[in-house]
Amino acid sequence: MSLQYTLPRKYFASETVFQDEIERIFHERWICVGRAEKIAKPGDYFIQTIGVENIIIVRDNEGQPRAFYNTCRHRGTLLCDQETGHFRKTIQCPYHAWTYALDGRLIGVPDEHEMGFDKADFPLHQAAVATWEGFLFLNLADEPESFTKFIAPLAAQVGDWHMGSLQMADRIEYEVQANWKLIAENYNECYHCPLIHPELNQKSHYRSGNDKIDKGVILGGYQTITAAETLSLSGETCAPPLGDVAGDDLSRVYYYTIFPNLLLSLHPDYVMFHTLWPLAVNRTLVVCEWLFAPAALTQPEVDPQDAVKFWDMTNRQDWRACELSQRGVQSKAYVPGPFYDWQEHLLAEFDRQVLKALGEEPMVVG
Amino acid sequence: MSLQYTLPRKYFASETVFQDEIERIFHERWICVGRAEKIAKPGDYFIQTIGVENIIIVRDNEGQPRAFYNTCRHRGTLLCDQETGHFRKTIQCPYHAWTYALDGRLIGVPDEHEMGFDKADFPLHQAAVATWEGFLFLNLADEPESFTKFIAPLAAQVGDWHMGSLQMADRIEYEVQANWKLIAENYNECYHCPLIHPELNQKSHYRSGNDKIDKGVILGGYQTITAAETLSLSGETCAPPLGDVAGDDLSRVYYYTIFPNLLLSLHPDYVMFHTLWPLAVNRTLVVCEWLFAPAALTQPEVDPQDAVKFWDMTNRQDWRACELSQRGVQSKAYVPGPFYDWQEHLLAEFDRQVLKALGEEPMVVG
Amino acid sequence: MSLQYTLPRKYFASETVFQDEIERIFHERWICVGRAEKIAKPGDYFIQTIGVENIIIVRDNEGQPRAFYNTCRHRGTLLCDQETGHFRKTIQCPYHAWTYALDGRLIGVPDEHEMGFDKADFPLHQAAVATWEGFLFLNLADEPESFTKFIAPLAAQVGDWHMGSLQMADRIEYEVQANWKLIAENYNECYHCPLIHPELNQKSHYRSGNDKIDKGVILGGYQTITAAETLSLSGETCAPPLGDVAGDDLSRVYYYTIFPNLLLSLHPDYVMFHTLWPLAVNRTLVVCEWLFAPAALTQPEVDPQDAVKFWDMTNRQDWRACELSQRGVQSKAYVPGPFYDWQEHLLAEFDRQVLKALGEEPMVVG
Repeated sequence: MSLQYTLPRKYFASETVFQDEIERIFHERWICVGRAEKIAKPGDYFIQTIGVENIIIVRDNEGQPRAFYNTCRHRGTLLCDQETGHFRKTIQCPYHAWTYALDGRLIGVPDEHEMGFDKADFPLHQAAVATWEGFLFLNLADEPESFTKFIAPLAAQVGDWHMGSLQMADRIEYEVQANWKLIAENYNECYHCPLIHPELNQKSHYRSGNDKIDKGVILGGYQTITAAETLSLSGETCAPPLGDVAGDDLSRVYYYTIFPNLLLSLHPDYVMFHTLWPLAVNRTLVVCEWLFAPAALTQPEVDPQDAVKFWDMTNRQDWRACELSQRGVQSKAYVPGPFYDWQEHLLAEFDRQVLKALGEEPMVVG
Repeated sequence: MSLQYTLPRKYFASETVFQDEIERIFHERWICVGRAEKIAKPGDYFIQTIGVENIIIVRDNEGQPRAFYNTCRHRGTLLCDQETGHFRKTIQCPYHAWTYALDGRLIGVPDEHEMGFDKADFPLHQAAVATWEGFLFLNLADEPESFTKFIAPLAAQVGDWHMGSLQMADRIEYEVQANWKLIAENYNECYHCPLIHPELNQKSHYRSGNDKIDKGVILGGYQTITAAETLSLSGETCAPPLGDVAGDDLSRVYYYTIFPNLLLSLHPDYVMFHTLWPLAVNRTLVVCEWLFAPAALTQPEVDPQDAVKFWDMTNRQDWRACELSQRGVQSKAYVPGPFYDWQEHLLAEFDRQVLKALGEEPMVVG
Repeated sequence: MSLQYTLPRKYFASETVFQDEIERIFHERWICVGRAEKIAKPGDYFIQTIGVENIIIVRDNEGQPRAFYNTCRHRGTLLCDQETGHFRKTIQCPYHAWTYALDGRLIGVPDEHEMGFDKADFPLHQAAVATWEGFLFLNLADEPESFTKFIAPLAAQVGDWHMGSLQMADRIEYEVQANWKLIAENYNECYHCPLIHPELNQKSHYRSGNDKIDKGVILGGYQTITAAETLSLSGETCAPPLGDVAGDDLSRVYYYTIFPNLLLSLHPDYVMFHTLWPLAVNRTLVVCEWLFAPAALTQPEVDPQDAVKFWDMTNRQDWRACELSQRGVQSKAYVPGPFYDWQEHLLAEFDRQVLKALGEEPMVVG
């Protein structure tokens, strides 16, 4: 076995590499932008920023989600500066009242007869959107890869959880002073659990797991719930098992990384997911949401906070470790270090996916 | 008629282009630095910053305004860090007491006999200043263009207002989160008035105007005051007509752009002007001042605040539009959009002046 | 005599030059990091940051000071984020519990038997440390120059003060909005004293001094205490003379610059020193400490604050001058100015050392 090594310093410290990642990864790949329930009715929208890009994600009048760049075709003005809301049939620019349909067509221009151009030439710029199991995905590439092909390896694993029917029970935002890759890497190993997460490690031992997918842009496996019913503060189950979850899966938590920005954690009784939003080379917004079966949420004995508080504590333990890593890898003395193959080989694969997406050669060290 | 298009993204988003504009435009052209009444007596001074340059503008002992770079010829120390004040005959460096006359000559050096150099070799660095109609203009170029030639097209239009005799009634500073050109462009069209300025559009309809000068570094025209006496909150006149203003001009407001940083608005009864100070590619300080006839200011029935408050409201409406534009044009999806020729052709000419000053080719799109 | 001139603008305004200085000067030369008494016992440590480098300085179990880069050899994590403290025999990474001895050896790795590598290959990265007269010096160079040779010119001058036996009485940190070289230059001349320091100039006249060393990386001389017993608010002596200080030295203050970051001021009865920590091209952290004989500090009539407050006042006068200089030399109109040879020739030599360290030619102006 040859050793695999961590990424060099520039991937955590260089503004140039960071911009490259935004352009080649976050502006080219399928990005999870949260749950479709955020835009339940036609006209509902929310704003998603990715680097400098500002995207309106709106449900159109036919009920399809659409994504538009938030910039008027006249003089570029931001069409909408409210984070979330509802459009009544059209999107109107607040500057000169140019008006667009919810499918992006320019349909109204004051003094149009004097303009000398054809409205049909100036629709909103549009990006690709996909819905899967209740999640919305966005892709800013000129020619996006097939979403179905992209998601297939995960779709083959997670049908039993019936995620499409789940409902958001809570949501917490964290601003972490660390590069987004350190956060994803942290998620992909439990070698740190004994020291960082005594509560988690007591309920789900760090050596109790195994991989399910260890190659490609979707990676993951499970850990066994060795001394509890589920991962919650009390250790007791929060709700009845989801969908068709049964057998071994009743005592497992599955952790999947969907490159680049979705971390999906399936428990027997609830689902948690993180989306990662790079703000700077050393700063990332992490949005964590918890999904439960709607029926369970109406029952008085179901308390999502037992799960939410457990993971909020565990999240914060992770962020501190990621922030210390960010500070340490800034040093010119930092050189790639050896991964512990059994516990950390998913990180090596994640790093290979980063390098591949950037068009760079895989690491060979020593 | 071929379409004219807005400037590409880099002119609103690139730090490099911004620095280029500072050097080739703000450090090379005649810049308005406000009214001469700020330095009424010999020794009076104020500090003007333009990019990193810090300039002392002082009235010398012969009564002439002078501009000096605020840096000692010894070790470069800032000579003066008070924004405004009065020098008693000389300017003394606070570090080693080197002393300069108000015409810039080095006239005192402690221990001079041991120095081994000639004081005459170390005068303050000086820049060009011009006074016109009560305005002070500054030019940092090594070889400034003729001020008289520069201002001639405007001088030919505005003599009736007797601006040289006016007095400042109020002054408001705004920090706008937008590129300086977006603010100038906004000033040059009223196509946005119906949506952005309902109060202004009600008093002075956006289609009621015409151009006076539509080529070169000085641009402008008028709008008719269609349903008021002047532009004020009440709509009533604030003061008697200025100077020799008569005839049609009693119901017009003239709006002139003096490239790059002066926006001059002549009303029948008062004058308003904005000066633009680029702070960053996406941030501009705007100083707005209102001038009235001194005689009017002593009369109890004259209330400049009726005009000031009207424009303060209108200014803030504009800044919000400019800030939305700044945010929108940051997107890589923003591409130059079509100007509405009748209402926006002065913007196209303004943009051509920007490109010319930067030594670049005029835009050809599509 | 030909005139010497100040450094050009870029040495005070360019981020590139600043980074070059960090790499070629602060990461290559002997840097004073304060007094050895800060790590009195084995296991005691403090953190020193120099640019992006974060260094643990710790006394090992044999009593030797050691310097380690604060980055784990596994995944680069910061080992320690407390500014000062005590290690119990080992340094443990807070992420995955890799553990190092106080001499830097990796001695503990969880699940080591599964790792497939040899711990001996992953010791902490170490830097050079030297102790002299109670001062700790650090050198991050791959091949540090001989400390003994470096310090020899100073060692030959200052033995009488018995600095090795002194104890810290007070410490003040200042954040100065000026380039580090302006602060060192300010320290090297008293031509500014009449205007900036009336209290100091009254006690120790600016023309009362002479040089001791005027070439090389160690520079300095003395000023005579012309109208006081020592430099203190009261003018009265603070403590008995230090060590073997006698004769003329009882009425002198010696001021030495140890390039690049130590300014050492020896008074008859106490020692003051400044260490300079560049934070940005226009921002420097200055740490000022006062050392007294331990025996004196136990005596009720000895009041270190009489000295501390005098110099705190004088320091702040200097920082203001340095900050004005920083602002002035940003101007493109700033050009190198003439040094006053008798009072300012140490500055010219300091500047030559800067240029030499950066591998650049000495200044020739005019």
